Amino acid sequence: MAQREQVQALSTPTSPETYDPLLDLREKLRQFSAERDWDQFHSPKNLAISLSIEASELLEHFQWLADERSSELSPAERLAVSKEMADVLLYLVRIADKLNVDLIQVANSKLVENAQKYPVEKAKGSSKKYTDL
Amino acid sequence: MAQREQVQALSTPTSPETYDPLLDLREKLRQFSAERDWDQFHSPKNLAISLSIEASELLEHFQWLADERSSELSPAERLAVSKEMADVLLYLVRIADKLNVDLIQVANSKLVENAQKYPVEKAKGSSKKYTDL
Amino acid sequence: MAQREQVQALSTPTSPETYDPLLDLREKLRQFSAERDWDQFHSPKNLAISLSIEASELLEHFQWLADERSSELSPAERLAVSKEMADVLLYLVRIADKLNVDLIQVANSKLVENAQKYPVEKAKGSSKKYTDL
Amino acid sequence: MAQREQVQALSTPTSPETYDPLLDLREKLRQFSAERDWDQFHSPKNLAISLSIEASELLEHFQWLADERSSELSPAERLAVSKEMADVLLYLVRIADKLNVDLIQVANSKLVENAQKYPVEKAKGSSKKYTDL
Repeated sequence: MAQREQVQALSTPTSPETYDPLLDLREKLRQFSAERDWDQFHSPKNLAISLSIEASELLEHFQWLADERSSELSPAERLAVSKEMADVLLYLVRIADKLNVDLIQVANSKLVENAQKYPVEKAKGSSKKYTDL
Repeated sequence: MAQREQVQALSTPTSPETYDPLLDLREKLRQFSAERDWDQFHSPKNLAISLSIEASELLEHFQWLADERSSELSPAERLAVSKEMADVLLYLVRIADKLNVDLIQVANSKLVENAQKYPVEKAKGSSKKYTDL
Repeated sequence: MAQREQVQALSTPTSPETYDPLLDLREKLRQFSAERDWDQFHSPKNLAISLSIEASELLEHFQWLADERSSELSPAERLAVSKEMADVLLYLVRIADKLNVDLIQVANSKLVENAQKYPVEKAKGSSKKYTDL
Repeated sequence: MAQREQVQALSTPTSPETYDPLLDLREKLRQFSAERDWDQFHSPKNLAISLSIEASELLEHFQWLADERSSELSPAERLAVSKEMADVLLYLVRIADKLNVDLIQVANSKLVENAQKYPVEKAKGSSKKYTDL
């Protein structure tokens, strides 16, 4: 609860009907970075490095787990994993802001593209790359 | 346009007032995977590997660019970069689904945590890690 | 055979008794880069990015394989994997050259450090990180 | 000095004239893993994950440094960086052992291949990928 309020304090006000969770994160990250004078470090290149490092830290939690075990995380593991996922999302939103990319739009377009690359009849039950189907 | 319609066709219907873009992606990814019988491959561990690989493919586009140049992508570069960002988001949403993590909530909590780790007075203008501040 | 000769042609001559395979690679990479005027791009930071990307390309070959399957590569898979491993080694040797690091020496020191972090009696049969042993 | 001796103690004896530093590391790693019963975890897939994570930890040291600064590491930074490089080499040697790959041979072959992909006249002064030359 207390956390929620702190988050709200960071947030720019949005009316409920127009609330967009990624735009909200974008605004908070802009403010966060501006307050700390961090824009000087946030080239898309540096942010992409950071994103890649966070993705690797996420992977580290699964490094020695068997596949099935990776679905059965303890509460402590799940919390640690969710924080790394948060970091990945935050850097992704930040890069999208810097490059003026609409993440939801490109993700939906990519899904369409993937559906064409991996037609059900060919891809069903196969983990092959589309170039090998 | 045509793409939009295809995307809508993949989508589960949501009334406008409750539309949540990440939940919408989650549903589309569930359907995508179910149709192709891919859940057998989608352990959190394997998905984290995929996320890390996509983050690396995103980084590859910036590999040899000077920092400033990375802000000035050509339209073709920007399109290619945005597709890799889409892949990162799609895998992230998929892992969140498998682990039952609310991405927006954990991202907001992480922002609060980061604000405590990097207080403005200490972090201003510095790229040091919080452990070195 | 023909390849071997080409490799030799790139190489600086070394007498058999002093041949050090990593120093030999270092010299070839220096020459390779000098001929192409690539030293301008080869900051340690950029080389570390490249190394990370190559490591990710190596991982990509194992992405959807079950653990046991990853030991049973086809000849074509093994060749592709070995080329990615070569890329990792080449970038590693190049960074070591730029930072004047003796790879063999630091690897041997790290092995000693690891032996202290993971004493046999504690680490036997466990995949836990040393901080959790 | 003491470290050197410990390292030697781990090593299988080799006569000076046949000493190969990577084979020596391979033997030490085999022994290290056997003593700890770690071969059960060391599938090529898991080792490739580990290599990728270590490469990312190496990159982390350069994350916020300007290109030129990355050539001017402090002694403490250089030590930390060299340990990550050691980890990368150790995992690479371990994967090579598991897949029976001769790292030096494949690296030399890859250098020849790269020389063909990037002919001097086309690649000079350019950071473009060979597919774009």
